[in-house]
Amino acid sequence: MKRYKGIYFDHAATSYPKPRAVERAVLRAISDEGGNPGRSGHTLSLRAAERVFSARERIADFFGLSDARGVVFVKNATEALNLAVSVFTQKGGHVLCDDMAHNALLRPLYALERTGKITLSFFSAKEGVPDFKDNTLLLCATHASNICSHLIDAERLGALCKERGVAFLLDASQSAGHFPVDCERIGADAVCLPAHKGLYGIMGAGAVLFPHIRDDYPVFLSGGSGSHSLSREMPRALPEHFEAGTLPLPAIAAFEAGVNWVRGIGLDEIRHKIRSMEKRLWEGLGSMKNITLHGDGFGGGILSFTHARLSPERVAAILDDSGIAVRAGLHCAPLAHKTLGSGKEGTVRISLGYTNTEKECEHFLKEMQNIAKNE
Amino acid sequence: MKRYKGIYFDHAATSYPKPRAVERAVLRAISDEGGNPGRSGHTLSLRAAERVFSARERIADFFGLSDARGVVFVKNATEALNLAVSVFTQKGGHVLCDDMAHNALLRPLYALERTGKITLSFFSAKEGVPDFKDNTLLLCATHASNICSHLIDAERLGALCKERGVAFLLDASQSAGHFPVDCERIGADAVCLPAHKGLYGIMGAGAVLFPHIRDDYPVFLSGGSGSHSLSREMPRALPEHFEAGTLPLPAIAAFEAGVNWVRGIGLDEIRHKIRSMEKRLWEGLGSMKNITLHGDGFGGGILSFTHARLSPERVAAILDDSGIAVRAGLHCAPLAHKTLGSGKEGTVRISLGYTNTEKECEHFLKEMQNIAKNE
Repeated sequence: MKRYKGIYFDHAATSYPKPRAVERAVLRAISDEGGNPGRSGHTLSLRAAERVFSARERIADFFGLSDARGVVFVKNATEALNLAVSVFTQKGGHVLCDDMAHNALLRPLYALERTGKITLSFFSAKEGVPDFKDNTLLLCATHASNICSHLIDAERLGALCKERGVAFLLDASQSAGHFPVDCERIGADAVCLPAHKGLYGIMGAGAVLFPHIRDDYPVFLSGGSGSHSLSREMPRALPEHFEAGTLPLPAIAAFEAGVNWVRGIGLDEIRHKIRSMEKRLWEGLGSMKNITLHGDGFGGGILSFTHARLSPERVAAILDDSGIAVRAGLHCAPLAHKTLGSGKEGTVRISLGYTNTEKECEHFLKEMQNIAKNE
Repeated sequence: MKRYKGIYFDHAATSYPKPRAVERAVLRAISDEGGNPGRSGHTLSLRAAERVFSARERIADFFGLSDARGVVFVKNATEALNLAVSVFTQKGGHVLCDDMAHNALLRPLYALERTGKITLSFFSAKEGVPDFKDNTLLLCATHASNICSHLIDAERLGALCKERGVAFLLDASQSAGHFPVDCERIGADAVCLPAHKGLYGIMGAGAVLFPHIRDDYPVFLSGGSGSHSLSREMPRALPEHFEAGTLPLPAIAAFEAGVNWVRGIGLDEIRHKIRSMEKRLWEGLGSMKNITLHGDGFGGGILSFTHARLSPERVAAILDDSGIAVRAGLHCAPLAHKTLGSGKEGTVRISLGYTNTEKECEHFLKEMQNIAKNE
């Protein structure tokens, strides 16, 4: 087996290939920094702790957090969202969520709704006019949709929430690494994101970013914390309160290296290149018979389309046979398909990364011409 | 920075160095199998899904699970223990726990005790005679202590629990890779373990092993599951029910490679080598003035000692200056120190791995002679 030689258009699932610097960071974490961070005082454990510290500082800086202790490392964006939702729904009350949300956000909310702890209603991501109630305690918003990269006006929502004293949770899973995400500017109370998508880290790490650190967080996972061992409770302070057990050191090292890589290229350059490829694909697909594009060309590098006669799975399978990797189906976001009217079978999704090229787009369009025409 | 050249005696925190085969598995997962497993149908995602499938099968086989769907991947043993405790305490009632338990097990139990959902009492790991009550619903046991590698009689406890219809949860964090852990033979209802200690994987993965698969598991984390996307709930089936969000593919690949490596050497050979080194250290340290050994020489490669005048931290710092990595303190197991009478400052802990050598032990004893004598 060797490095995949096809055209990879599934960056919204995970980015590929990873930069060499990320691979090197992972190997270095395993072979040179491989102590358990925060668990011992010897050289190798200190090297590991320094790596985690450095990653935390870097990530805080990139996302506009003034205090790096607000960066809580978790295993993936899903854990991040479960954690953040639990923090802001302690009292119970009404929760607002946008209509492009992923199951990683929807299902924790539905689970709380089933227990009776919260009531839940939705607002249009496109219109961005949430219907606040007297007992609204939390607004959740999907920064960029994983179906069509529609970008929500996060700053406006942040301001609305601040006015009303409502907590604001932003799911930046698809925006991080593509669009600027400045926590303090947005006015979010928590931002959740994975390391392995637009930030080019590896699968196995994510973060909750808390711009405003409190000292009354509820229990999430409990376990060893490397300090305050005599206490029956987790330490109150962030990030320790939410980081029970051994941290995923190699994935955290990759997280840092990925952020450095993205920063080195620059978000403007990344967005410029991706927008240009997306525009070409949008126009190319838009002119094909039998092909319907869903949403708009939002510039985040994610396009969804359907074929008049072939199922999304069939189209994806034909493309895979031609060495082109796309995703078919609901993409874990059933509500977004309802919003876009793209049906119960979902769509074929193309999601671009900085590592894609114009040439790959042309090749893809040529293949799609055949699929659109001949079947 | 480069590969640590010192003597690494902190395997109970994480094993080091990792086998080259594990490093290679991680790189391969990143560069050749780097799709998101279970999220798309294209070649690269299928390669990733096959890797996860293969790891699950391997791990099931190694730990005596007849159905690999009972292997649930989590981020670390702490998440595994939180998850397993939540599964078996749904109804509420009395829980028994051994007196050598780590905070990864204690703190989730204390958290439930605080909510009033469970009452909690302890039994002696050494004596192994738990005081069952009419409403006891769960017995938790630490297979091998992380302070002194005392091994509990798991099969006997399993039989006692079975007689009484009490669920049996085994924390195999320190035993996996050292002692045989056969889930079905032991009669455990759940076994929790990390990938990165005696199994020589990397930090970022662990597992809960469920020998008896049910279809009424409670909610733990909720999120995208790659299937059943239209449902508001997680799929009922294992492992999907508990694997919300993107799996830590590189750490899962390392988990499999580590298990293969351990299996290739053989548990008997590993135990034989470690026992022999432990015996030498036990005798050597036992004959030194000012040094008190705690527990017994249990053969699992973990020894704890204290110095009559120097704090554990001081001893560990002197050793680190000499290029020897040990851990000082409570090791996140305050109850075990109470049980052993090793005090509030904890101990100096030596924890051996298969990669250690007799020569390293002799070098360590020479250093310790100086520390014991001269200060």
